[in-house]
Amino acid sequence: MSKSRVLSGMRPTGRLHLGHLFGALDNWRLLQEAYECFFFVADWHALTTEYAETKGIRENIREMVLDMLATGIDPSKAPLFLQSRLHEHAELYLLLSMITPVPWLERNPTYKEQQQELTTKDLSTYGFLGYPVLMASDILLYKAEYVPVGIDQVPHLELTREIARRFNHLYSEVFVIPEALLTEFPKVPGTDGRKMSKSYGNAVYLTDSSEQVTAKIRPMVTDPARVRRSDPGNPDVCPVFDLHKIFTPKVERDTIIDPGCRTAGIGCLDCKGVLLQHMLPILRPIYDRRQELATRPEIAQEVLEDGYSKAKKVASETLSEVKAAMGM
Amino acid sequence: MSKSRVLSGMRPTGRLHLGHLFGALDNWRLLQEAYECFFFVADWHALTTEYAETKGIRENIREMVLDMLATGIDPSKAPLFLQSRLHEHAELYLLLSMITPVPWLERNPTYKEQQQELTTKDLSTYGFLGYPVLMASDILLYKAEYVPVGIDQVPHLELTREIARRFNHLYSEVFVIPEALLTEFPKVPGTDGRKMSKSYGNAVYLTDSSEQVTAKIRPMVTDPARVRRSDPGNPDVCPVFDLHKIFTPKVERDTIIDPGCRTAGIGCLDCKGVLLQHMLPILRPIYDRRQELATRPEIAQEVLEDGYSKAKKVASETLSEVKAAMGM
Repeated sequence: MSKSRVLSGMRPTGRLHLGHLFGALDNWRLLQEAYECFFFVADWHALTTEYAETKGIRENIREMVLDMLATGIDPSKAPLFLQSRLHEHAELYLLLSMITPVPWLERNPTYKEQQQELTTKDLSTYGFLGYPVLMASDILLYKAEYVPVGIDQVPHLELTREIARRFNHLYSEVFVIPEALLTEFPKVPGTDGRKMSKSYGNAVYLTDSSEQVTAKIRPMVTDPARVRRSDPGNPDVCPVFDLHKIFTPKVERDTIIDPGCRTAGIGCLDCKGVLLQHMLPILRPIYDRRQELATRPEIAQEVLEDGYSKAKKVASETLSEVKAAMGM
Repeated sequence: MSKSRVLSGMRPTGRLHLGHLFGALDNWRLLQEAYECFFFVADWHALTTEYAETKGIRENIREMVLDMLATGIDPSKAPLFLQSRLHEHAELYLLLSMITPVPWLERNPTYKEQQQELTTKDLSTYGFLGYPVLMASDILLYKAEYVPVGIDQVPHLELTREIARRFNHLYSEVFVIPEALLTEFPKVPGTDGRKMSKSYGNAVYLTDSSEQVTAKIRPMVTDPARVRRSDPGNPDVCPVFDLHKIFTPKVERDTIIDPGCRTAGIGCLDCKGVLLQHMLPILRPIYDRRQELATRPEIAQEVLEDGYSKAKKVASETLSEVKAAMGM
């Protein structure tokens, strides 16, 4: 029996941090064993919000691919390709444009949301509005049966499904209707307690050495109500505890809660020490592989070229079917 | 000195009629002598309104190309290519999407207009909204210096110019800002007095024989106020007179007005006879060439393939410059 197909992409944001590791790559590493996966670097998607700042994109792509390889993404199991190398994505985007009602896009909850949030950028662009059309083209080109998504991405995938159904209805049954592989991604706070993000300057990178990680975790924000060592703390509101949930085994984590934090049994610095005991051994092998990969950065290009050939076969075949169905 | 470059395209609507001949092709025939022209069949544009009816598009393209050749479009002077053969148009459409503000598109006067006019079609699509972005990509890919447009198309071209300026400003000076080659196209009424259009069933086709043309012109609508032969007529409101303006030399046309129509000096049927005297000798050679071309329809494909090679050189070079400018 052949494996079901999964597609997933990630924007080239430069060096990856723990948010990317636990928000996607760790999951990709598992998926590549159980499914036929296609992974891609979504550089065209990056333009939907970063069109005015494209200078470092090539370097970002290379660094990101090396990071991915370091985390265990295995191109021999799952092709990893660069979206913009395949003009099929652009052609299908154009063709799907023609059948996608604007109200479907305006209804997209993240459209207005992001426009309001990212106030420093002008996101009233046609490309930003059409982001779900490009996403639909990415997914449908590979006839992916599953797409790993967090709960907040479900409306986007629903749009892809609606576009696919509309195409199949207007022309013929070319597209597989993809299903959500609903994934519960852990919360990954940055050192200031907000969501880990490059732009907040609160990120722990995969390229950080154990010393650098330690130096970032030690002053990390904890439960703000716990001012003195003798104050009891509340793990439920402590960002360090969110990291414990990722790195520290449950039994030990439970003792940190009680007796521990809640009774002021341990101090925050001790608590961070426990975290680092578990965190560093997990991050260290990734760091080491990453250092090794940095000595031969040309491998990023080789991986993408190999992924391109494999993706091209599937994408060009689907696009031919699409054109035939439309009579083009 | 090298010639200035001109780009112009036409949607594949099937067999061409006098509206196309005098609304575009007659002008193309002149342009190809004075400019370096690129002409194309805009099949992707056809999808913006015809996405639900794509069945006959391949045949439409072939018939249209044969019609074009019959009117004197000379592929040895000006490459004639099929838009959808060049994925560069789709890629640039995608890239320009990212920098085009939605309000620019919503402001486009024909957007709301056509939505209201073409009520049998659902034109609230993303692709229809983005039609000017696709048009910009067509024009800018060839660095066309001039685009022949009627006065009603000027706002569209202005959008292309704005998009080009925005790109040049954001990245670097890749694009030539195209200028309008403002052209006064004659009014071409159909046999019922409305604008000549396939969908109105009032068209005189280039594939119509002299007998067919005569049979269509004889019962053609004239000044509706002229009921009896003895009623004086008004050429200003007579659709037949609009055709006289195209086919009949001015001196003779003046005598048709006065003495003639205005004094009931000639009847409508006589007037149409005069029109046909001038019309048939102009249409006949086109018809004859068209009949000859119909015996070797494979020439349409050959012309488009040759045009593709020539267009590809320019388009792929521009796209490379675009990507380099954006750092992609």
